[in-house]
Amino acid sequence: MDKLIEKIIETQNPTVAGLDPKLDYVPEYIKAECFAKYGRTLEGAAAALFEFNKKLIDALYDIVPAVKPQAAYYEMYGWQGVKALAATIDYAKAKGMYVITDGKRGDIGATMEAYAAAHLGTTDVGGDTIVAFGADSLTVNGYLGTDCIKPLLSLCKDKDKSIFVLAKTSNPSSGELQDKKIGDKTVYETMGEMCEGWGSDTIGRYGYSAVGAVVGATYPEMLRELREKLPHTFFLVPGYGAQGGGAEDAKYAFDENGLGAIVNSSRGIMCAWKKQDGKTEDDFAEAAREEAIRMREDLLSVVGEIK
Amino acid sequence: MDKLIEKIIETQNPTVAGLDPKLDYVPEYIKAECFAKYGRTLEGAAAALFEFNKKLIDALYDIVPAVKPQAAYYEMYGWQGVKALAATIDYAKAKGMYVITDGKRGDIGATMEAYAAAHLGTTDVGGDTIVAFGADSLTVNGYLGTDCIKPLLSLCKDKDKSIFVLAKTSNPSSGELQDKKIGDKTVYETMGEMCEGWGSDTIGRYGYSAVGAVVGATYPEMLRELREKLPHTFFLVPGYGAQGGGAEDAKYAFDENGLGAIVNSSRGIMCAWKKQDGKTEDDFAEAAREEAIRMREDLLSVVGEIK
Repeated sequence: MDKLIEKIIETQNPTVAGLDPKLDYVPEYIKAECFAKYGRTLEGAAAALFEFNKKLIDALYDIVPAVKPQAAYYEMYGWQGVKALAATIDYAKAKGMYVITDGKRGDIGATMEAYAAAHLGTTDVGGDTIVAFGADSLTVNGYLGTDCIKPLLSLCKDKDKSIFVLAKTSNPSSGELQDKKIGDKTVYETMGEMCEGWGSDTIGRYGYSAVGAVVGATYPEMLRELREKLPHTFFLVPGYGAQGGGAEDAKYAFDENGLGAIVNSSRGIMCAWKKQDGKTEDDFAEAAREEAIRMREDLLSVVGEIK
Repeated sequence: MDKLIEKIIETQNPTVAGLDPKLDYVPEYIKAECFAKYGRTLEGAAAALFEFNKKLIDALYDIVPAVKPQAAYYEMYGWQGVKALAATIDYAKAKGMYVITDGKRGDIGATMEAYAAAHLGTTDVGGDTIVAFGADSLTVNGYLGTDCIKPLLSLCKDKDKSIFVLAKTSNPSSGELQDKKIGDKTVYETMGEMCEGWGSDTIGRYGYSAVGAVVGATYPEMLRELREKLPHTFFLVPGYGAQGGGAEDAKYAFDENGLGAIVNSSRGIMCAWKKQDGKTEDDFAEAAREEAIRMREDLLSVVGEIK
């Protein structure tokens, strides 16, 4: 996790920009250009998403340490959309950003080998080694247990990658299973403890392992509880902004050095122009940068200097 | 679930062929052709996977009701692999097979709308409606609760689709979370009961809802337990063959009419030539058909006539 943490310290910004680009968010002029070139097709839509992402990344890369493309918003535009996901990852990495692919993948061991190769590792093609997607980090659903995590762990160790395992998610119905008690512990705490175990031999310079956890800002008390109980587990915190969480909620995710967490904002950044006076959709990139600066100040006001 | 059930009755075969095509499984002559055309690239690999799948589908479509492509094995070959997934789905559907995309997707509500559009529904592109992947069914991880299921349910109702939610998975470490007790019920039973609830207003002609569950053949006692407790939930049963389960294990998944479950075999069918005397990799399609017939007979020997 050190690579991410160093980017956070360098930018003094514990924020990750979610790139969940629905076509509705993309300004008309970009769509018109792409439809003119590729037609009103999945290819045209995917080209528009990538143009939109590029402009967002250009506006953010020097002040935001990481991006988190959400796989679903690319898959809905077919393989053409998935091609835009690959291009987005490449572009963000070329700009020096840390890339977390939000895929929430989780499967049996042999299949996780394939997901690990796809998203964090390399694929062998007749003896040649090729990078398929090549993110720095992947979100993971741990419902299947250790089998599902192991293939990723070896890439964490050998290739300096990380993962974030779902513990307590930000959505309203997350408690249906996650808040239930197993003995005297909730399911989310049980999952969090598994993260501590899985990460135990990948602890880096800042005390955090390569196995992080997803814990929503929409449940600040649980965030506080897990921060105390999981001292080596870095948190990816969704739920800030559009989902209702604020800096006062997210603050519990951090340790005394201002580390321990990175807070996601997707729509809040992508669609920031809607909430800024005098802006139109054509100003989305400038508005995204302003919102990213506002969010950084908002978080630093509760976190203090990150060291 | 009626569409799947009718295919099962028509073919008298409660089997789904898993299409998890690693490049290693593809005969040299197919790879040589595809590499000659596209180079030793992800494009070349993806073309080889699709050729392999087409020949398998041609060998199976009249005797096996369904295929289950596993998304991971396509993603590992990049967007080019995902394009081969889309082509495979189209090809299998054109041959009349029921297609279950094994993606184990699971996310918050807004994101599940995107996954639902991607895999079961349609995507809007500037007013035009386009099918991105268009499977009949999707496997789902329910760790996030009802929010994650709802967007899929409306497609189940409106477009005659189905889903299979992970309950008790076939892998060795599945018990780490799934076997833990919540009150007097295991996590897998709790998840199974949620499936009964989610499916309650989509019950079809055969008594099964559109919300199925994944329950592994490698845990026959739990399969038997869940069959009794979840009378409206159709099971997708992995773990037969390469993972160690046999017909004697899988039999508990079925009801007295021989319905209630479809049993998956992936490597067992794809790599059947390895276990058949005198066959080489060039005979993979013929061997796959022979294995599918053997598996059908094996399952029918414990299930009886399907009606």
